[in-house]
Amino acid sequence: MDKAKIKVQDFLARVPLFNSMGPEELSRIALGTTELRVERGGQIFQRGDPCVGFHQVLYGQVKLSFTSVSGVEKVIELIGPGQSFGEALMFMGSPYIVSAQATEDTLLLHVSKPVIYREIHHDAEFACKMLAGLSQRMHSLMCDMESYALRSGTQRVAGYLLKELGEPGDTELTLPVTKAVLASRLNLTPEHFSRILADLSTQRLIAFKGRRINILNAEALRDHAGY
Amino acid sequence: MDKAKIKVQDFLARVPLFNSMGPEELSRIALGTTELRVERGGQIFQRGDPCVGFHQVLYGQVKLSFTSVSGVEKVIELIGPGQSFGEALMFMGSPYIVSAQATEDTLLLHVSKPVIYREIHHDAEFACKMLAGLSQRMHSLMCDMESYALRSGTQRVAGYLLKELGEPGDTELTLPVTKAVLASRLNLTPEHFSRILADLSTQRLIAFKGRRINILNAEALRDHAGY
Repeated sequence: MDKAKIKVQDFLARVPLFNSMGPEELSRIALGTTELRVERGGQIFQRGDPCVGFHQVLYGQVKLSFTSVSGVEKVIELIGPGQSFGEALMFMGSPYIVSAQATEDTLLLHVSKPVIYREIHHDAEFACKMLAGLSQRMHSLMCDMESYALRSGTQRVAGYLLKELGEPGDTELTLPVTKAVLASRLNLTPEHFSRILADLSTQRLIAFKGRRINILNAEALRDHAGY
Repeated sequence: MDKAKIKVQDFLARVPLFNSMGPEELSRIALGTTELRVERGGQIFQRGDPCVGFHQVLYGQVKLSFTSVSGVEKVIELIGPGQSFGEALMFMGSPYIVSAQATEDTLLLHVSKPVIYREIHHDAEFACKMLAGLSQRMHSLMCDMESYALRSGTQRVAGYLLKELGEPGDTELTLPVTKAVLASRLNLTPEHFSRILADLSTQRLIAFKGRRINILNAEALRDHAGY
């Protein structure tokens, strides 16, 4: 067994989808897995490209987005370490309907479709894990749709900041992407997003400088988020 | 075997998810399947109810929607014969995040979770069918998000009418739900939706009376839809 293969297996063992697998199963998956290093700004795939597997993020961040004919971009999801994307289209046998671009230096695994199908036929628990993963993704999409349709811009921003805070007691966070990308992710124009941040700052709920945000009054922010 | 069981199996055999199954497998599924008749306007479940299986529509139509605290309703999907819903939450073990209401007299099958898990462990092809079904649903949700974010109201309405036309050469259709429900489904206010229909009618692209719509110029409508 060569060095490269052993490395892919080490990576695979860290992925939730594969972490209950034994060395033999991991070897089988590794045979259909490619390591992919993408620099910040690099394109991973474009809408219309064939989808012959799915991607797993080990570190870094990937932006999935649509772009209209007039060049307007709508960010659908930001995918971080431990998360994956592309399973749905892989199972449908359809080309990509979104584009994927690295927003940081990123390390990805690409796991090919035949390997996944083989494993589903080999192990029902693996099939259940894939079903749970896809269900989780669909759940988030539906929550996003609800939030776009029924929550105000301020509620969405306040909710996002509270979610990004991490540990209870934390008061500081750094936005993981540019404000323009984040605005699109929250279904806001960049101007609207900036106005909301300025409003929250005037009300002394937050203070911000560039991408660093201090939460001054989490309680009041929670009220704004409508929790 | 009693009469009721035979009937459920007949219904099941018509569902795409189950139609490659033999009599023995269908019997197993039937044991965990309940027939559900819901009158027009009847509630099937509400947000927060536990999800212990998924629903399959045999005839009729079901509306899945969110409702904000202020009572605004956002229709996520309209589910018709041959379509199913609730799989994602079933696999996640989460309560419903939407409400479901029949918009017509509807016949549903409710297939319980343990039966589905047993079948996944028994038959990998069945697992693949469930994965394909979930993927299809996720694909539609993403297409909806794209359309809300990047397409104008007129484009969405024109696209919807052309999709509903059915056979090539057809020029007449009946909206399957009230205009208010359809407006919400297309992420428009009822007023905006009415204005778009009036505009298309002024331009002699369509004519309408209540829910009946005549397409007068499909070619020009296709241009409007941006195809």
